[in-house]
Amino acid sequence: MIRRQRLSALAGKLGGEVRGTDPLVRGVRTLEEAGPADLAPFTHVRFRRLAETTHAGAILCPPALVARAGRAKSAAIWIHPEPWVALATLLALVRPPARGGRRVHRTARVAKGVVIEPGAKVGARTRIGPNAVVCAGSTIGDDCEIGPGAVVGAGVEIGRRVRIGPGAVVGSDGFGYVASGDKLLRIPHVGRVVVEDDVDVGANACIARATLGTTRVSAGARIDALVQIGHNAVVGEGSILAAQVGLAGSVRLGRGVQVGGQAGVADHVEIGDGARLAAKAGVIGDVAPGETVAGYPARPRARWLREHATLARIAAPKRGRR
Amino acid sequence: MIRRQRLSALAGKLGGEVRGTDPLVRGVRTLEEAGPADLAPFTHVRFRRLAETTHAGAILCPPALVARAGRAKSAAIWIHPEPWVALATLLALVRPPARGGRRVHRTARVAKGVVIEPGAKVGARTRIGPNAVVCAGSTIGDDCEIGPGAVVGAGVEIGRRVRIGPGAVVGSDGFGYVASGDKLLRIPHVGRVVVEDDVDVGANACIARATLGTTRVSAGARIDALVQIGHNAVVGEGSILAAQVGLAGSVRLGRGVQVGGQAGVADHVEIGDGARLAAKAGVIGDVAPGETVAGYPARPRARWLREHATLARIAAPKRGRR
Amino acid sequence: MIRRQRLSALAGKLGGEVRGTDPLVRGVRTLEEAGPADLAPFTHVRFRRLAETTHAGAILCPPALVARAGRAKSAAIWIHPEPWVALATLLALVRPPARGGRRVHRTARVAKGVVIEPGAKVGARTRIGPNAVVCAGSTIGDDCEIGPGAVVGAGVEIGRRVRIGPGAVVGSDGFGYVASGDKLLRIPHVGRVVVEDDVDVGANACIARATLGTTRVSAGARIDALVQIGHNAVVGEGSILAAQVGLAGSVRLGRGVQVGGQAGVADHVEIGDGARLAAKAGVIGDVAPGETVAGYPARPRARWLREHATLARIAAPKRGRR
Repeated sequence: MIRRQRLSALAGKLGGEVRGTDPLVRGVRTLEEAGPADLAPFTHVRFRRLAETTHAGAILCPPALVARAGRAKSAAIWIHPEPWVALATLLALVRPPARGGRRVHRTARVAKGVVIEPGAKVGARTRIGPNAVVCAGSTIGDDCEIGPGAVVGAGVEIGRRVRIGPGAVVGSDGFGYVASGDKLLRIPHVGRVVVEDDVDVGANACIARATLGTTRVSAGARIDALVQIGHNAVVGEGSILAAQVGLAGSVRLGRGVQVGGQAGVADHVEIGDGARLAAKAGVIGDVAPGETVAGYPARPRARWLREHATLARIAAPKRGRR
Repeated sequence: MIRRQRLSALAGKLGGEVRGTDPLVRGVRTLEEAGPADLAPFTHVRFRRLAETTHAGAILCPPALVARAGRAKSAAIWIHPEPWVALATLLALVRPPARGGRRVHRTARVAKGVVIEPGAKVGARTRIGPNAVVCAGSTIGDDCEIGPGAVVGAGVEIGRRVRIGPGAVVGSDGFGYVASGDKLLRIPHVGRVVVEDDVDVGANACIARATLGTTRVSAGARIDALVQIGHNAVVGEGSILAAQVGLAGSVRLGRGVQVGGQAGVADHVEIGDGARLAAKAGVIGDVAPGETVAGYPARPRARWLREHATLARIAAPKRGRR
Repeated sequence: MIRRQRLSALAGKLGGEVRGTDPLVRGVRTLEEAGPADLAPFTHVRFRRLAETTHAGAILCPPALVARAGRAKSAAIWIHPEPWVALATLLALVRPPARGGRRVHRTARVAKGVVIEPGAKVGARTRIGPNAVVCAGSTIGDDCEIGPGAVVGAGVEIGRRVRIGPGAVVGSDGFGYVASGDKLLRIPHVGRVVVEDDVDVGANACIARATLGTTRVSAGARIDALVQIGHNAVVGEGSILAAQVGLAGSVRLGRGVQVGGQAGVADHVEIGDGARLAAKAGVIGDVAPGETVAGYPARPRARWLREHATLARIAAPKRGRR
């Protein structure tokens, strides 16, 4: 939440021009999640559908997207030459809602050295290992197990029967910057992390907080040690990520996706239901449901194998010596 | 340990059929480690030798392995269509043995914020950094150094002169699941981790607990930061693993193996003594002693270099332009 | 600092031969940083320029470098057949300078469970998250944010407006060993880590302490989660390292270098200003300023793309079937 103010007041401070009405703005949310009191950024043509159907009271966009933004039901448009620069400044003003007291269920078992901050909730029969940290406003459901030294970040929502491994960090800051002249501005990450029921997160794994919106690990997903999940990524139900996998920002994995160890997926890539990414794959484009890819750049596994066999044949010494 | 009961009682609850005698079962151990009061799973033909020589009182196997299991000295066989599903249920009932009090040597130096759980032992002159966690029933030998925030998991055994880096996790849960219908059951990991004398483990590295049996880091091995060692892996004496290396489950490294940064080894692969795995290698098959491999899939380094040179030559623009 | 003694006394204990004068030695520093009371190792011809201009009171070198060492202004030379073996023993005797009391600025906000060791300094308005550890003699500047469970190692120097993510370890031991007969001696790392102003370090990232000298993250650099930075590496101003990147020891990144996720750089490699290393690149040789490289071994990106296209064409099935 930010201090409630007119859209024109924001533009007055941060630059740009307002078209349409001049609504009171109280929050900054994604096009999907925004309501009439929210400002929503629309910064890439990839999101044109969402811009047309958003319920946001105001849309922030660059000049190139004004025509698209005009199709939204919401009347107000804030045109800014560098919307992410304006956002970086604006998001630094976002404050979390006031927190109530801690609510730790009487059947929860909290080990020594654990820090539970104000506004956090811990469910029934949940066990929290020594020296873990449960930050302000986070929620942990029933029957969870939080490992020693793990960190559940501010406002993170964790379902039931979830296991967070020792040293894992759920809700670290996302890694997002915007160039402003010769400086690199840090974009404050004010979004959420939702970890649904029956998820396992391995030791020292990291799940980043969304910029706006939500980083989501869906029900039954299994994440091994030292995995990195970038801001705004979505891991589908029952997907399995082996150790040291990295998902960049806004990656979307479907249901039942299997990702081999040390594989990586580039930002905004979509992986269809049931797809398999081989160990060490470097996936830079979308993968269709059920497909198996390997190598870097990742390609269908059969093709990858054939290319390797072809190269080996061509490069073999003439008389078959090795 | 589980509650002592007849093998037939287990089969009655979890399904399957018992052949031979009907022994009392009190533990679940590997074919190698099991004794007359233990049940041992035999689930892959790869372990046929171990099945023939096991001292287990009972063997759990799928129908396809019954003939092999029958060669074991132990008389009782529990045939189950999905032995890992039965195991997942059974292992959830395993309870660690009762722990005595803590035993911290009077010359040990324990920093502020350290949590030492019941039954843990800390040896002479060992130093434990701030906010580290030493879990129930673990043992740390003499002259060790445990870094700030490190976690020594329940029952882990650490030798002498071992250094565990800050934030490292020794004894996290292994990553093992079994499909049961459309659900994915978590296999509880009840095995051990043994870290022998003179081992170094780097910052934020993770060593997973064995399913059954032991994950072992042998004497003098050196493991750099952010390395992942999967359940039941064995790292041979004096082996060196650079940063961000990943060993999947049940990998066996021989003595004096050198593994370059970010290399990965697939599950059950065996690497011979003195072998070298180049940085970023992806090793999916066994490597002979003394061999040097590179690339993914890993192949002899000379061949890998030749293939790269061949490809570069073929792909070069005709007039030598770049 | 070590106990002050004659160079000849060190050689008497650790072997080798002294030439020239016999100065009193009180510290061990790099050729660049050493003064008249310091011993500096000169162990690779790569450092010949530094050896010629050093102000060290004494130089430790192998026989093969004696002629080069003789060009130094400093008169004393300690010739040792295995200088790193001598160093490993010597560095184990180095003791940090005596620490004063803790100095935590009255406007700093220190959460529960934080351990701040003697001699540490924490600047104005700096916030330290729950269960973080600030080790002896380290310095944290103004307006920093240290995440929950993060570790700032002994003697580490952190500038202003720096963010250290949850679970990150700044100042872990470097990974350096020297073979002595059939044993592998650990080289104690007694150097520094300097993190300059406006740096971000991601969750569970690791930055290793220098052997001697300094591991440096320059102003404005951005480092994502699970990155490994080896001992004595230098990250230039404004460089950006995506998640799971690994820099080996003594790597030098210039200004404004961009490194994609899971890329790795081999030890002693130099990367020029503004260069770009693609995700998953394995960089084993120097990269010129402004160049973009990809693949492993890393090569100019255009060439890498061409090689992949060529291979795909050659390996394609004859009738265009996939």
